[in-house]
Amino acid sequence: MTTPWDSFLTEQDRAVIARGRFGRRMGFGERCAVIVIDAQKYMVGEDGKDAAWPSSCGEIGRRAVGEIARVVGAAQAAGVPCFFTLFEIDPSGSDMGVYRRKRDLLENDHWCLAGSTGAQMVPQLKPGAGDIVFVKKKPSGFHGTPLLGYLVERGIDTVVIVGGATSNCIRATVFDASSYNLRTIVPQEAVFDRIPISHAISLFDMDRQFADVVAVQQVLDHFQALPRAR
Amino acid sequence: MTTPWDSFLTEQDRAVIARGRFGRRMGFGERCAVIVIDAQKYMVGEDGKDAAWPSSCGEIGRRAVGEIARVVGAAQAAGVPCFFTLFEIDPSGSDMGVYRRKRDLLENDHWCLAGSTGAQMVPQLKPGAGDIVFVKKKPSGFHGTPLLGYLVERGIDTVVIVGGATSNCIRATVFDASSYNLRTIVPQEAVFDRIPISHAISLFDMDRQFADVVAVQQVLDHFQALPRAR
Amino acid sequence: MTTPWDSFLTEQDRAVIARGRFGRRMGFGERCAVIVIDAQKYMVGEDGKDAAWPSSCGEIGRRAVGEIARVVGAAQAAGVPCFFTLFEIDPSGSDMGVYRRKRDLLENDHWCLAGSTGAQMVPQLKPGAGDIVFVKKKPSGFHGTPLLGYLVERGIDTVVIVGGATSNCIRATVFDASSYNLRTIVPQEAVFDRIPISHAISLFDMDRQFADVVAVQQVLDHFQALPRAR
Amino acid sequence: MTTPWDSFLTEQDRAVIARGRFGRRMGFGERCAVIVIDAQKYMVGEDGKDAAWPSSCGEIGRRAVGEIARVVGAAQAAGVPCFFTLFEIDPSGSDMGVYRRKRDLLENDHWCLAGSTGAQMVPQLKPGAGDIVFVKKKPSGFHGTPLLGYLVERGIDTVVIVGGATSNCIRATVFDASSYNLRTIVPQEAVFDRIPISHAISLFDMDRQFADVVAVQQVLDHFQALPRAR
Repeated sequence: MTTPWDSFLTEQDRAVIARGRFGRRMGFGERCAVIVIDAQKYMVGEDGKDAAWPSSCGEIGRRAVGEIARVVGAAQAAGVPCFFTLFEIDPSGSDMGVYRRKRDLLENDHWCLAGSTGAQMVPQLKPGAGDIVFVKKKPSGFHGTPLLGYLVERGIDTVVIVGGATSNCIRATVFDASSYNLRTIVPQEAVFDRIPISHAISLFDMDRQFADVVAVQQVLDHFQALPRAR
Repeated sequence: MTTPWDSFLTEQDRAVIARGRFGRRMGFGERCAVIVIDAQKYMVGEDGKDAAWPSSCGEIGRRAVGEIARVVGAAQAAGVPCFFTLFEIDPSGSDMGVYRRKRDLLENDHWCLAGSTGAQMVPQLKPGAGDIVFVKKKPSGFHGTPLLGYLVERGIDTVVIVGGATSNCIRATVFDASSYNLRTIVPQEAVFDRIPISHAISLFDMDRQFADVVAVQQVLDHFQALPRAR
Repeated sequence: MTTPWDSFLTEQDRAVIARGRFGRRMGFGERCAVIVIDAQKYMVGEDGKDAAWPSSCGEIGRRAVGEIARVVGAAQAAGVPCFFTLFEIDPSGSDMGVYRRKRDLLENDHWCLAGSTGAQMVPQLKPGAGDIVFVKKKPSGFHGTPLLGYLVERGIDTVVIVGGATSNCIRATVFDASSYNLRTIVPQEAVFDRIPISHAISLFDMDRQFADVVAVQQVLDHFQALPRAR
Repeated sequence: MTTPWDSFLTEQDRAVIARGRFGRRMGFGERCAVIVIDAQKYMVGEDGKDAAWPSSCGEIGRRAVGEIARVVGAAQAAGVPCFFTLFEIDPSGSDMGVYRRKRDLLENDHWCLAGSTGAQMVPQLKPGAGDIVFVKKKPSGFHGTPLLGYLVERGIDTVVIVGGATSNCIRATVFDASSYNLRTIVPQEAVFDRIPISHAISLFDMDRQFADVVAVQQVLDHFQALPRAR
């Protein structure tokens, strides 16, 4: 697998990584779940109309949705449970918190206000029986949500994290997952960001310390080889 | 202030940021605390001997320690409480969790094993009366620690986060601080990383969405202007 | 104030409490919020028809609703923010977790299934502008919810906790509130339980270590004396 | 098993419990851990000298220590991991939080100040290889500690909770364990409280909704029947 970050590293960087023995493989454990982060219309906009979608990640996001759907489909076929987060802000802004100081409240049907078009899940994804969809208010899928308990109850030891944006909500979710001692897998074509260098360097940082960044195909292969479990 | 990330951005990146209205200023609130993340010997090594310190951030780290000491000193003079985390792993590895899959357990007196030389706080920092030092086991200073309650009790609404490494523990702590709706300030000369591009792009990502990246001088000025409170 | 627990204590119990200096007053701090726990139809049933409501706390619950409404009304008049939890389980049981092992999934419109009559807030309560209503999946109003961040952002140092049941969700919320170092106040007529002795002894246990159990009137008086803040 | 709470219940209470179908058995799952809460000298005092130990639970506590040791010994023999909490307050009171408002800071070598005699683990308990001892600052063994991640990494689905006091730290730990969807078992002779009625009614409340209250012998039998796992 070529990585999106190789070209950014210096010889000095590579020596530092080797010295610290960073970046080994976590590998898959015995029981997986898929966590789909914020695969919502406001994140991917519309072909040719991104100017009208303030948070759109554009073509890169739309391409990733296809990969996310492949991961979710393979999981559902293998009996691997899927958890879908939706990022929503109340139109009054009452639950926006300190984030209101970094962003305006965008009164726009194409943003993530509860009830807006933008807040809807992308139509390519279909939660199955036993899958759970829930709202989050902060970057991490774990922060202020019941996600961790859902994983504990199902005996999950490995999470495959997909969606966007790589440098924001994916990264925060990866920090929390690995901090709770879950093996954490990020299939690189199934995560996306609106800023290319933030995407590349976030993948690098996560792969070095907190998650295995892998090809989508590797996840699909793993799911196909599973005994049907659910 | 020139930023370490400006040179990495394209015109397209700047347009995306403008369209989404990212990167406004949070500003300081009414009551500050300083959180010093992992300012330990293993993080900064020794001049001319970094090859013997597996996780050292080298000269960049040692330079940052001076800036951290200035921030802490100004905070203590102004009655702003300081919280110091120490990252420690039990020499048996029993508490290392899934991180053992990304890193070997390094049986080295210059790493972060409890009781080792490397695990000691750098000597330039002196916790004062009322300051609290505590051990953490994961990147974020909030994860699995009593930190949040300490801040709630003191009525803190603004945290100044210093230490290292920028792309690991600083970033995880910033995610958590802003997710708990604290105003989050990162003085850029007082954080450090072993990989320069990870440092620069992490600062950019945080400044865009979760924290104000500022000059150390701006924090010092703010503390000096405070009515003495503690 | 006479307390519901006095008659249950022995001389020996009183000596133990005196020796350990338990049960001092926390008092009100500078900024209050009200947390209304599970004030839903399934918790209070219907006059004369409690047999048809599996979790009803009966007449005791219905009487408490009037007291809760007084507390909420006084809070809203004084600009004190109110947070309302709703306990809801997905009709599929997918989010019920290990609780499914203590209770059956009750397929009953009078229980707390999402979308059922029972899950609705009691009609006597009216969230105001700026108040927040949110769903929880576990006893504590803090567990797996964004509540703590809402309080941090508003600078809250004191929470008044009302609703039910005293020995379950109230008690779990009180543990969490005081563990996060919030001053915690329980007005005794505004909490209720389906088991009288569990109610009385839970109030005693909380008052001894974690919360001030007070009369509703004391909360009303405090709110009325506040300078209008919101 | 006779229960300590039976004699306190009315016919009406029993009818309410039957109507709501409360109190089923969770049962043991596939992988257990033991959590020992605050089995420290300050909690059990000294025979004939309890007046000199402000928080002692007295003879009841000392008797329970023997039962706790049996549970821990059987766990260690069966390869079941044990986690021991120690409740400690810094002698300065800086980390005591809002609890300082319910209790004075007791400057007493027989209380739980860090470094004091009272803060030591009772000598009857011996953590084994792989067991973990950690300090907590609040009632629940999960609050502000790394405990949950330790359990996740070991694939634990069932926790046996022992120690004291039943109505304070045991109960808070049980709330958190069951909220994280762990099966929760409380062997009744291995938990203790300084107030008899608080002990009895807390056991009742937990058994009804959040944990299985069982005889110590049932836990011992379960551990003995396990294939050796660690």
